[in-house]
Amino acid sequence: MLKTRVIPPTEGAHSTPLLIKNLLLSGRRYERSQEIIYRDISRYDYATFNERICRLANVLTAAGVKPGDTVAVMDWDSHRYLECMFAVPMIGAVLHTINIRLSPEQILYTMNHADDIFVLVNAEFVPLYKAVEDHLTTVEKTILLTDGDEKTADLPNLVGEYETLLAAAAPTYDFPDFDENSVATTFYTTGTTGNPKGVYFTHRQLVLHTLTQAGMMGGLDSMRLFGNRDVYMPITPMFHVHAWGIPYTATLLGVKQVYPGRYEPEMLCKLIKQEKVTFSHCVPTILGMLLNADGAKDYDFGGMKVIIGGSALNRGLYEAAKARGMKLSAAYGMSETCPLISSGYINLELEAGSEDERAAYKIKAGVPVPLVEARIMDSDGNFLPSDGKSQGELVLRAPWLTQGYYREPEKSAELWAHGWMHTGDVATIDEMGFIEIRDRIKDVIKTGGEWISSLELEDLISLSPAVKEVAVVGVPDPQWDERPFALIVPREGQAMDAKVLRDHLKPFVDEGRINKWAIPTQIATVTEIPKTSVGKLDKKRIRVEIAEWQEAGAPFLSTL
Amino acid sequence: MLKTRVIPPTEGAHSTPLLIKNLLLSGRRYERSQEIIYRDISRYDYATFNERICRLANVLTAAGVKPGDTVAVMDWDSHRYLECMFAVPMIGAVLHTINIRLSPEQILYTMNHADDIFVLVNAEFVPLYKAVEDHLTTVEKTILLTDGDEKTADLPNLVGEYETLLAAAAPTYDFPDFDENSVATTFYTTGTTGNPKGVYFTHRQLVLHTLTQAGMMGGLDSMRLFGNRDVYMPITPMFHVHAWGIPYTATLLGVKQVYPGRYEPEMLCKLIKQEKVTFSHCVPTILGMLLNADGAKDYDFGGMKVIIGGSALNRGLYEAAKARGMKLSAAYGMSETCPLISSGYINLELEAGSEDERAAYKIKAGVPVPLVEARIMDSDGNFLPSDGKSQGELVLRAPWLTQGYYREPEKSAELWAHGWMHTGDVATIDEMGFIEIRDRIKDVIKTGGEWISSLELEDLISLSPAVKEVAVVGVPDPQWDERPFALIVPREGQAMDAKVLRDHLKPFVDEGRINKWAIPTQIATVTEIPKTSVGKLDKKRIRVEIAEWQEAGAPFLSTL
Repeated sequence: MLKTRVIPPTEGAHSTPLLIKNLLLSGRRYERSQEIIYRDISRYDYATFNERICRLANVLTAAGVKPGDTVAVMDWDSHRYLECMFAVPMIGAVLHTINIRLSPEQILYTMNHADDIFVLVNAEFVPLYKAVEDHLTTVEKTILLTDGDEKTADLPNLVGEYETLLAAAAPTYDFPDFDENSVATTFYTTGTTGNPKGVYFTHRQLVLHTLTQAGMMGGLDSMRLFGNRDVYMPITPMFHVHAWGIPYTATLLGVKQVYPGRYEPEMLCKLIKQEKVTFSHCVPTILGMLLNADGAKDYDFGGMKVIIGGSALNRGLYEAAKARGMKLSAAYGMSETCPLISSGYINLELEAGSEDERAAYKIKAGVPVPLVEARIMDSDGNFLPSDGKSQGELVLRAPWLTQGYYREPEKSAELWAHGWMHTGDVATIDEMGFIEIRDRIKDVIKTGGEWISSLELEDLISLSPAVKEVAVVGVPDPQWDERPFALIVPREGQAMDAKVLRDHLKPFVDEGRINKWAIPTQIATVTEIPKTSVGKLDKKRIRVEIAEWQEAGAPFLSTL
Repeated sequence: MLKTRVIPPTEGAHSTPLLIKNLLLSGRRYERSQEIIYRDISRYDYATFNERICRLANVLTAAGVKPGDTVAVMDWDSHRYLECMFAVPMIGAVLHTINIRLSPEQILYTMNHADDIFVLVNAEFVPLYKAVEDHLTTVEKTILLTDGDEKTADLPNLVGEYETLLAAAAPTYDFPDFDENSVATTFYTTGTTGNPKGVYFTHRQLVLHTLTQAGMMGGLDSMRLFGNRDVYMPITPMFHVHAWGIPYTATLLGVKQVYPGRYEPEMLCKLIKQEKVTFSHCVPTILGMLLNADGAKDYDFGGMKVIIGGSALNRGLYEAAKARGMKLSAAYGMSETCPLISSGYINLELEAGSEDERAAYKIKAGVPVPLVEARIMDSDGNFLPSDGKSQGELVLRAPWLTQGYYREPEKSAELWAHGWMHTGDVATIDEMGFIEIRDRIKDVIKTGGEWISSLELEDLISLSPAVKEVAVVGVPDPQWDERPFALIVPREGQAMDAKVLRDHLKPFVDEGRINKWAIPTQIATVTEIPKTSVGKLDKKRIRVEIAEWQEAGAPFLSTL
């Protein structure tokens, strides 16, 4: 280490570690009367929010939770979840946000692997909890979360019901200082093979992520995505990367926050209208669901800003959302990155260009936010140029990347090979700094010595008015190694087969955007496309199903 | 320390220390074609800016500057200064920003005390440098800074001229990682007694200050002070708390930056017009000078946003600036605080109120920014309530407060008594979190057992149309201990004496805003009020001069 000048602090000087408790200081000062809302069930202001965090800390401490313990939550998105995001790490414990969309076996695995000692369980998940309870190895106590009047449930090791416990607890708590590198949160990411992997984030990482997110979303005029006069509602689960960290940022700025529980289109639309929601974020599939839902078809979203991440935003969805009054902007990140890495941004040069060009940039993964380094690397660990053409794996450095997978030394070493965090995404970076994700490394279609991006194909196919939803994967081919295969949900009343698709894609071949062997020679028209627990296209399952259909000669297959 | 869960990082994982070099990543990505401008003399884009920082690092390294060394700058506000703010700390050295408005003796003291090894000297300061040169104990080498064609000067130990050296140096530099707690910058604050005191800030502190400043100024809609489509020009010297840290924040966001050199009103107005400056900051005295300057009297500032700090913003100046098209907003901080602590903010409650009420809040010290804790303390170290009434010393905690005065253990211990940083300011904090500075502890006027705020008196006196500028101090009084004494610069053609002043203040006594013994019984009408090197009222000198005038029975004294 370089011998720089480091001066020991004056005795008694306070240096303020980067702790989550400090994120609470400003919001209540800026806007004490702003509200935090849960469906039609709960509504209170920032002063009450702070008081409830203290009450929860007292409840947990009295129940025996100690610094370093893991406290897990099984809940829909709620004010209670938000309270746990603060109170649990603020007493020095670790918050495990359980992915309630995993299979019971996977949930059991993650709870044991994370050493969950204490679990807060929504009444709806009591049957699920009881199904795995016999095999839980570390859980000692539970708290019941309930939306209704029923304050008891047959939940083992029950300390009590959340609201009852909070009401009886003291409304102040003297939160201690401790090492800012203490783990604050953990959750599991589901790979395509093997067990879920636990990522974890420290107080320092979450504070830096929050400050950067606030500066980036507010300070960039061309975005003006988020300020304290916005009304925020996540449509991304809180168990998944802290709902992209935005609840922390909203709290920092004193923003009105609305939590919708589970994602029922009618409730979402009702809350958007009733609470005047101006800002949200979700994955493309959820947005598609919202736009097409029965209860929302005539709904005008009136300028609501929505960040799209998790999967690539295709142009078809971008335009469909625009027609319904939504302003979309893409962002990029993943479980391992806390998650914010880059976001859509229109610089001075693009501002001077055409609307069409700007839209093309808005659906890219965007420009890295402050403090993030992004590079393109080949499989030998060499950097490739950021010329907008060279494709390789996107690798990252930033102050808020997971420093490993919990208790997985080999996978951790792979993640951090060559001193850079490997995303598993194939990307280009252009001269303006824009990242464009070409594909997951494992989803790239290798055909006749060429690499075809499944994402690019999906993007072009989505532009067809006959297509409601699409997924493209590579399937084994004896002659070409792999061939692209398209799974398509057609729009109501629209014809779709391999020939219709070819006719749609032909002009893009003529323009030179794709080469002619990128045109899928076989497609399946289906009513639904398999998704993962966080709403992404589940290409692993899609490949398995295609193999089964091909084997069975399913009638909805169409071949050129 | 609490036993929380701290997981050692995966071998090879990179955690990204908070270093100033990382502040450079985003601006050039967001806006590569934005410019950095110095008067009519220099203009280049962010790509060139980054290249010049590398060139400067190569020049300094080749000249023998090592990590931990102190590199000092004597320059007017310029692009060169900005380059030094990055290149010097980025090679692990410490940047000493010399206060060129101090006396030669004080400058000499600070240069020796800070161990300056290397000095960059503007040609205009060569005579000053040579005047102290014989007594410099640590300086080994110098670089000449010049605005004109003259590339040489009779400067001892000269390595060369800045532009010539940069042109010959390589345009890339591989900046190393090192401890984020390394000192990055130092400068001296001038107290009322004794030698100047050296404060210092680490890389970590400056990065956190920058992120918070970006988030606070951009994310708060009611401020919308600063975004990347603004054009920034400081009117606060870069030697003084890094021009309030805003050059770092501007660079983070890719903002167009304009540096005006010294503060000549005509040049300032010309640059504001020519470069379309939208955002600036200064102390009240400089703003008054700008508004009243011969070359600027008819100038319409067209909505320019200006943050006022350093001293209290009085209502008279606020209204005068408003009439000229400026949007003022107060902020609070000091040399010891990096400096940002609080800033004007109009919350939902105030937004619903009257324009007059909002103005009253805009001139207060504002609401603390994220991560800052502010409390009121009595002289025994007890906290007083934040009720808007209780007065005591404002004490602070934040991640970016100086951890001591360099090589001054006793003064450092005083600064951090009771584990809180003492500001020396008497203040109140109200229920909404607004800080109101009542006075410097040493400037409060103690009369007949009451405390009178000299700032409040100055504020009320400034409302008189006959008053151009005012300072109030306590002078010794045998009967009342102290009595307020007003120093007034009258507006041209306006009559002013003790009776006129009494008539102006009488209504405020009737309203109960001040009590009747707050009315100064003696005043002096002068053409200029003594200021410190950073443009604040120099109350120490004012007291000395008043004593001399009273002794001599000066003709411009007026007594009730």
